[in-house]
Parts: sequence; C-alpha cells; structure tokens
Amino acid sequence: MPGYDAPIREIRFLLEDVFGYDQHTPNLPGFEEATLDVVMAVLDGAAEFVKDVLVPINLPGDREGCHFDQGAVTTPKGYKEAYELYRQNGWPALAASPDWGGQGLPPSVALMVREFVASGSMSFGMYPGLSQGAYRAILAHGNDELKQIYLPKLVDGSWMGTMCLTEPDSGSDLSRLRTRAEPDADGSYRITGTKIFISSGDHDLTDNIVHLVLARLPDAPAGTRGLSLFVVPKRLAQDLPGALAGAPNNVNTGSIEHKMGIRAQATAVLNFDGARGWLIGKPHGGLRAMFTMMNSSRVGVAVQSAGVAEISYQNALAYAKERRQGVAPKVSKATDSTARTGNDGRDLIIDHPDVRRSLLTMKALTEGMRAFYLDMALLLDVRAARANSPEGEAAENRLALLTPVLKSFLSDCALKVTELGIQIHGGYGYIHENGMEQFYRDARIVPLYEGTNGIQALDLVLRKIGLDDGRVFESWLASVEACTEHAASIASLASMAAAERLAVAKLRDATARLRAWQAASEWHVAGAATDYLQLFGLVTLGALWLRMACAAHAGRERNPQLASFFSGKLGTAKFFFERLLPASETHFDAAMSGADALMTLRADEF
Amino acid sequence: MPGYDAPIREIRFLLEDVFGYDQHTPNLPGFEEATLDVVMAVLDGAAEFVKDVLVPINLPGDREGCHFDQGAVTTPKGYKEAYELYRQNGWPALAASPDWGGQGLPPSVALMVREFVASGSMSFGMYPGLSQGAYRAILAHGNDELKQIYLPKLVDGSWMGTMCLTEPDSGSDLSRLRTRAEPDADGSYRITGTKIFISSGDHDLTDNIVHLVLARLPDAPAGTRGLSLFVVPKRLAQDLPGALAGAPNNVNTGSIEHKMGIRAQATAVLNFDGARGWLIGKPHGGLRAMFTMMNSSRVGVAVQSAGVAEISYQNALAYAKERRQGVAPKVSKATDSTARTGNDGRDLIIDHPDVRRSLLTMKALTEGMRAFYLDMALLLDVRAARANSPEGEAAENRLALLTPVLKSFLSDCALKVTELGIQIHGGYGYIHENGMEQFYRDARIVPLYEGTNGIQALDLVLRKIGLDDGRVFESWLASVEACTEHAASIASLASMAAAERLAVAKLRDATARLRAWQAASEWHVAGAATDYLQLFGLVTLGALWLRMACAAHAGRERNPQLASFFSGKLGTAKFFFERLLPASETHFDAAMSGADALMTLRADEF
Repeated sequence: MPGYDAPIREIRFLLEDVFGYDQHTPNLPGFEEATLDVVMAVLDGAAEFVKDVLVPINLPGDREGCHFDQGAVTTPKGYKEAYELYRQNGWPALAASPDWGGQGLPPSVALMVREFVASGSMSFGMYPGLSQGAYRAILAHGNDELKQIYLPKLVDGSWMGTMCLTEPDSGSDLSRLRTRAEPDADGSYRITGTKIFISSGDHDLTDNIVHLVLARLPDAPAGTRGLSLFVVPKRLAQDLPGALAGAPNNVNTGSIEHKMGIRAQATAVLNFDGARGWLIGKPHGGLRAMFTMMNSSRVGVAVQSAGVAEISYQNALAYAKERRQGVAPKVSKATDSTARTGNDGRDLIIDHPDVRRSLLTMKALTEGMRAFYLDMALLLDVRAARANSPEGEAAENRLALLTPVLKSFLSDCALKVTELGIQIHGGYGYIHENGMEQFYRDARIVPLYEGTNGIQALDLVLRKIGLDDGRVFESWLASVEACTEHAASIASLASMAAAERLAVAKLRDATARLRAWQAASEWHVAGAATDYLQLFGLVTLGALWLRMACAAHAGRERNPQLASFFSGKLGTAKFFFERLLPASETHFDAAMSGADALMTLRADEF
Repeated sequence: MPGYDAPIREIRFLLEDVFGYDQHTPNLPGFEEATLDVVMAVLDGAAEFVKDVLVPINLPGDREGCHFDQGAVTTPKGYKEAYELYRQNGWPALAASPDWGGQGLPPSVALMVREFVASGSMSFGMYPGLSQGAYRAILAHGNDELKQIYLPKLVDGSWMGTMCLTEPDSGSDLSRLRTRAEPDADGSYRITGTKIFISSGDHDLTDNIVHLVLARLPDAPAGTRGLSLFVVPKRLAQDLPGALAGAPNNVNTGSIEHKMGIRAQATAVLNFDGARGWLIGKPHGGLRAMFTMMNSSRVGVAVQSAGVAEISYQNALAYAKERRQGVAPKVSKATDSTARTGNDGRDLIIDHPDVRRSLLTMKALTEGMRAFYLDMALLLDVRAARANSPEGEAAENRLALLTPVLKSFLSDCALKVTELGIQIHGGYGYIHENGMEQFYRDARIVPLYEGTNGIQALDLVLRKIGLDDGRVFESWLASVEACTEHAASIASLASMAAAERLAVAKLRDATARLRAWQAASEWHVAGAATDYLQLFGLVTLGALWLRMACAAHAGRERNPQLASFFSGKLGTAKFFFERLLPASETHFDAAMSGADALMTLRADEF
C-alpha cells in the first residue's frame, strides 16, 4: 500500500520564500489572522488527517467501488466514518464566511488542504469539493431565505452539494440542455429532466444533498441564454403545502457509472421527475451563476492534479531509493552514488540515469504544479478580500486568463507524472495492490471533466487572450518578464533565465499571430489551440521555476542547514530548463502551422 | 460496446503498394505458396474470427477477470470456447513447420493475424502468443525426444507454453535469479524456486502447459552466465519411474495478480517445488536460448501495440463521425464540412480542428506502427528462409538493431493513441461500458513487459548502435536516406522529404556523439538513451511515411477509384511531417545534453 507525508516543507518554502505570504494575504481585509503560523498549523492538522484517515481507505475503496442497490448509493467501507471525522474536524467550514458558521480563512488555505485530501483519496475529496461550489453559488446568487436554509448546513458539512449540468446530448456544448422548470403556485418550480455524470450525485455520507441544476423556464430563449439555475434538494428542506421538510423530493438515481478510476466516488445519472426546485439568481441567468462555480471547480481540478501527482511522485521516489537492479554507470565527478552500491554489487535504481530522468520529470512537474495553483490561490485571496476594487478586478482578470491554462496544463501534467510513477515500478506498477496504477486511473478524469482540455484551449485562444483588448495578457506577460530579468541578474541562474526569455518571445509571437488570425481565420486559431496552451503552460511553469530558483539561491546562503533542500530545488530547476522547457519550441511550431495540416482531409478520407 | 473491422484495406496497401510483398516473400525458399492472394485469404478468415468471436468477449472478460480458486485458474466466460474455435481453425499451426504439423506460412502472416487478435482481445492473444516462444525455443535448442513430445502438441494448440524468467528480486536484471535445478538419476532435473509475473501461467484453456524456465545448475557460475533453460510441463508428458504421463508435476500456482488491464489474462505466481524439468540446449546456455524467445516476444509486443491502437482509433473515428457538439469554425477553402452540419446547426466533432488534431495523431501513429512492424516482419521472413546465409545474417543484424526501437517506440505510441481515444470521447471515454478506457489499461502493459522501455533504450545505445562497429546502423541509415531521396524527387512530396532529411542528420549526429561518449562517459549515454530512442523511432516512422506517401502518390494516378484512400494517406503523411516529426528536435537536444541535468542532485536532495 502506498505511503504519504503531506509536503509541508514544500508548502512552507513556497509560502515563505517564494510568494512572501505573510506580506500578502494577512494584509488583506478580513484575513488578518491568517498568518503563516496559523496556516501551517491548519496544514499540520490536515496532513495528519489525510495520512491517518484517508490514505488507508483509498486503495480498498478503489477495489470495492460504490454500490447501487434499489435506487440508493452506498460508498465503500470506511468512507462514511472518514467523512464524519472530516466534518467534526470542521474542514468544510474552513474558508466559509463566519456569517454562516465558517472559519473565514482565505481560499488559498482551503485549496492547500484540498491538495492533501486529493493525495489521500481523490474520490473522497470530490464529495466536500463539490459542496464548495454549491455554497458559493447560493452565497452569491441566492435570496436570503435560501441562504438561511442551505448555507449553515453546507458550511457545517451536514449536507453536501452537486453541480447538475451535463445531459446525454449536451456535454461540452450546453446550448442544447433540455431539462425543464415549470413555476408552481407556491413560488417553487417543478424540475423535469435527466442529468448525467453527476459527481457525488447520490451517496450515504449525508442525509441530504443539495443539487444545483441548470434548466429551462417555459419562456426561455434557445441556447445558453435560456438557462436558469435552481437549487433542488434530495429531501425537502422546508415545509410545503402537502409535504413536510425531510420528505423525499422527486430526484431519483437512475444508475451509477462503472468508471476507469475515482471508483469510490459516486458518479450518478439523476432523474428529476417534477422535483421541486427554487430559482437562484435571475431567470435565464443560470449560466452566469454556474460559471462562478465552474471557474472555482477548474481551480479545484488543478489542485486535485497536483495532489495525485504528489503521492505518485512520493511513492516512485521511495521505490527508487529501495529497489536494486543492475549496475549503474559511475559518474566521474563526485556524487554519493558509489556509497550506496549494495553488498551484491547492484545499485539502487535512483542511481540509473534513465530512472533519474523520470524522477526529475515527476519532481519538476509536481513542484511546478503546486507553485502554479498556489500563485492562483493567492489571487483568489485578493479577489475574495477586495471584491469591487481595481485590485480585485485585476485579480479577477488574471484568474480568468490563466484558469484554462491552469486546469488543462496541470491535468496533462498529472497524467504524465502518474504514468511515470507506474513506469518506474516496472511490472509492479501494473499491479493493483501497489497503488501506482490507481493514481493514473484516478488522474485520468482530470483532463476530461469540468470542460475537456480541448474546450479549455479554445476558451483560452478565442476569449481569454483577447480580454480587455489583450491588456490582461500583456500585464501577465510583463510580470513573467520581470521575474525573468531578476533571475538573469544572478550569475548562476542566467542560463535558465536565457532559456525562459526565448520561450517568452515565442509565446508573445504566437499570441500576436493568433489574435491576427482571429477575425478572418478562426479555424487556424482553433487548430493551434492545444499546442498554444501547452506553450503557455511551459512559460508559466518556467517563470515559477525561476522564482523558486531565486528563492533557493537566496535561501542557501541564509540557511545553510537546509542546504540540501535548496540544492535540490536548484538542480530541479536546471533540469526543468534543460529537459522540459525545450518542448515549447515544438508546440510553438505546431501552433504556428494552424489548421493547415488538420483540415486537408475530407471526413471520408479518414 | 466497441466495434471493429480488421484493417484489410490497410494491410493490402502496405503489402502490395509499399513493400511489394509478391516480389519478396514468395521468392524465398519454402514460402513459394504464400502469395499475396493466399495471405489475404488467410487474413480474411482471421478478420472474421476476431470480429465474431473475440470482440464480443473482450469487454465482458475485462469486467469479469480471471478466477483463482483452490490453486486453479479459470478464464472468464467464453474464453475457453473461443480458444477451442481458434485451435480448430488451425491458427496455432499457421507459421509452424510442416515437420511438426504446421502450415509452414511465413512469420509475417502470423504476425498480421496476431495484430487482429490483439485488437479483438489483448488478453486472449497472449495465451497462444506465448506458445510461439516455447515452440521456437524447443525447435531451436531441444533434443529430438523433447521435440517429438512437445512440438506436435504446441503446434496443434492442444498444449500452450509460457516463459518463466522473472523472480521477485530479479526483473530487469536477471543476474540474480535463484531458481535451482538438480539433476535426477533418470536424466531429468528437479526444479525449485518461485517465478512471478508469468503470463498465461495457469488457465483452463488447455490440459497441459509447457513452462520454459530459467534456473541454475548446482555448479553454475554466478550471474547470467550461470542460467540454464528447462522445459517443465504442468503435467508430465512422458512416463517416468513412479509417475505416469498426465500426472501433475510439482508446479503450483501461488496466486494471480490483480492488474490494471489485460484482466482476462492470468498472470501467475508459480511455485516450482522440486518439479521435474528437462534441460534445453547446453548447461549454462539458458540466457542465449531464452533470447531467441525474448526477441520474438518483443516483436510480438509491437504487434499488440499496433492492434490495440487500431481498435481505439476505429472507435474514436466512428464516435467523431456521429457525435455533434457546438459549431465548428468554417474553413474558407472548399471542404465538405458544411455539408454535414446537422439540422440543429451543430457540427460533427470530426469537423472541429482540435478533434482533428487528435484523430490525425492517432491515424498517423497507428498506420506508421503497422508499417514498422510489417517491415520487420518481412525481415523475419528472410531470416527464417535464409538462415546461415549472408542475406539471413543481414536480416538478423537489422532486426537486432531495430527490435528495441520497435518494441519501445510502438508501445509508447500505443499509450498515446489509446489515451487520445479516451479524450475524444470526453466523459464517455472514462466509462467502462464504452471500452475506450480498457484499451488504455490493456495497452499500459506494453511499455512494461518483455524488458521495460528504459531497458530497451539502454540495449539500443550500449549495444545495438555499435553492432559490427556501427556498420549495421550505417546500412540501415543508408536505406532510410535512399527512400528520402526517392521521395525528394517527387515535387509534391519534397517538403516531407526535406523534413525527414533534417531529422536523419540529427540522428546521425546523435549516434556519432553517443558512440564517442561510450568509452569514457557511459553515464551520458545512459542519460541520453530514452530521448535518443524516441528520435530514432521518429526517423524510422518518417522513412515509412515517405514510402507510404510515394506509394499513395503512384496509386492515385494508377487507380482513380481509390482516390480518396490515397488522398487520405497523403494528407496523413503531411500531418506526420508537419505536426509529429518536429518533436525529433526536442529529443535530439535532450539526448545531446546527456546526463548533465540528471546527475547533479544527490539522492538525498530529491
């Protein structure tokens, strides 16, 4: 069974040395008490919970899966107890508003906790994860009555939430959603339709489930402008004529999916058979309200990606430090490898260069992924604390630009990392009981849900890079260039900065070309989308690795007893710039060829 | 449930238009009757068997898995019946010698049948697939008595074989194998030890199983030079003092593995408890005898890779031609896409450029994979027909050089293709009943077994490129250059040839550098291995795509009624050179940086 220790040291490095957390979030109104010490104490508690409670149920839960019997879903053994403990510990309330019973900590803290939870069990983490979206949608768009009914229950974790968007014919394209909502005399609505792929759609962890459902009012215009958002509880949450609170609503679970991974997570088909729902926000304003949840969910997917990559990397590293096979070529310059050759003359596989290549790829990506989501999380703190200010709006814009990159690039990284985690284990990686193959299967959902990565790439090239006539992109790129120039001023980091500078230039060129294509040649933009997003992601990770390298460079002088930690960071940065960043050139060339090679075939020539 | 039609048209194109099969194999002694018409008739039969018998049991077999109860293994429902039909149809005898009841067809034909079988069920294909290795090892190294006992049974399929190499402490590194063999008075040996990860190790498809086991004689030297090969039947195959033929041998199944994929294939732990075995070949000559089997197995893995990629591609294509989502950007130049926009204004996803990119990647890789293994298969025909001649030796050498590339590059391609097959399906790709995720899980074994891809890469750089002081490599590269120059002479293919020429130059440079590093800086060679192999694989596929493009160019003029088939080939070739080959530059740069970025960290700095 895989092991796990939460990456506390890594997080501290990022918060303290790289992002200067204490000069950032505690200076924001409302977050004054969320100092680094407080945050680290919270994370220590989460680390313990994940290691003791979640990691032990992850592999058995995958084996057992969820059960569906006579219309009801049961989670695997241990999940109900784990959730009860999670709830008692107050984790659902972490970043919720004190107005509704929350602890009022900044969003960034909740996201770091979610990373640990995702490492422990991606399936488990999705149950409370989706509640966050329901909480935020009701908080932002619900009326006072709905807030009073639902928010305290979501915050104390006694109820959970879902997002019900997808229907069989409408996945990436929501314009054809058919679920109907008809007004009732008592002010509620009757919701009728079938929703599929509903994560946490039914389960036994809480008594009630709060479904957020996109549906059409009778007078709705066609397309996505005709969607309205409703809250539809599994059990009624208030007394109604003829039905008391606690009575079952007409929300019926049709089945649960047999999935490749996240098998302890109940992905349900839900049939709404005239179920009672309540409108949230304006009629026909559902998509806008839902986007609040979807953008948060996409950041959540990125955090999951980092979490599953982290546990895969930890176990690959541990295996590489204990497995001996063959004799590694000896490196002429001094390393400590010969010291570890076994009595039988065989070397640890960590001393084999090709295994190193895989391990360093995992390490460079995983640590880069964490830096990326944390950088975004600190913007979420700003947005939360400074809503309706220029600073908040700037944070909002940068989040809008980077969210598709964050979601797609990190979910692709999660596949690469977990795939390498299998490969390093050789045949053992393919065996269920070692857990490595589960990490890949669990991770395989992240490029698919919350908008496939292809859809994210289109969002980036068709909408996001042109935000505010390109000024949002320019402002972000200027910040990348600033940290590149800072790194260039440090002699030992100059070659890394030079590599980043080249990649930044490519991204600038590519962006200009895409925006020029936009009007007349949209098919080229669409054909370039995925490669452009990969280029964008590599440049972003490069900037973050430069920041980490600068911090490690400074830290090594300041803090000699942590020298090996900082040296490891610098060596990993070197690897990133020498072995991973160069792929940006291939992506640039591919993006710049647009759709030329894509659209030459007719469909019948395939 | 996924569909499948064997790629008969593709195979005919390769045999007839690209490789000139009828001027090749039927001209070899012993294969005169294996004309193109005969081969196509055999393949039509295999296509029907796979579609009618194997495809229907593949998904249910994955769901059910193998059973292990009271020491015995049962395969999933339908597998025993399918195998009985396979045997009755004579498929096990296809390429076996008529001396032992075989049909005497060339190896290439058997491999094409194996591709179809692997598409239908990778798990199923491995059962008879491993028998081939046992057949060849006994044929090449066994004495007459062993041949007479075992070969007719293996050829008529009433018995099956296995390869027993791996032990818990010895996977990639066979030098530490511990299984012992002690001579008995009757000329047999007593085999004692535990073997793990034994494919087809136990099952109910045949009455007897013929294990080929590596073990050490009492006087064996240490390391791989002390290994001998034994045939150890599950049930005795001849009368012995105190035990009659048919009596159980002391080969006990300890367990079967719960695996990520190929779940209808029984991967067993086998305990040999003083089991009776018979020496094959010379004492301490076991590894050499086993290598005969292992090289064949590696070609077999490549064929499996092509098979699983093919069925994934077929189903992704079918889905892309029936699923409508969103509105695709219209391409200004004439294509047929607008003709297919649905009544509801939505387009088929095959008309979305980003989906095209994925489909074309799948198509270009899958068809390239098939061309690669078939090119090798025709060398196997030469080797089989012209053993001990200069022509046979040249074929042998080229096979030795290219086998690690074939095995690793194609297995990596299989992962890429099956991963895209999931992605094109969106959320549906993650659901078991649609089959796409099974293809990935099944494919995930190919980079791991028969020598991990990392081990193959080391074999390539440390041994194969230096074969005969580099002349084997030079001779192969000259053939690549010849087909590049041929393509360059055709105006419409000149830009593809130019791209290939650049990649060939990189491969030449990289090879020279690696050979120069060899003596003094082996760690650089090892650090470069995987990227060098990827570069090598891309150049190989490039040469094959040029040959396919030349053939399609000629075919389009000769055969106008197949114009859309040939146009499809030319368009796919264009895509390969514009969007896939350019990755060769990144791999070149990475390989040329050797181990510099890999060995800077100490193990405790990870």
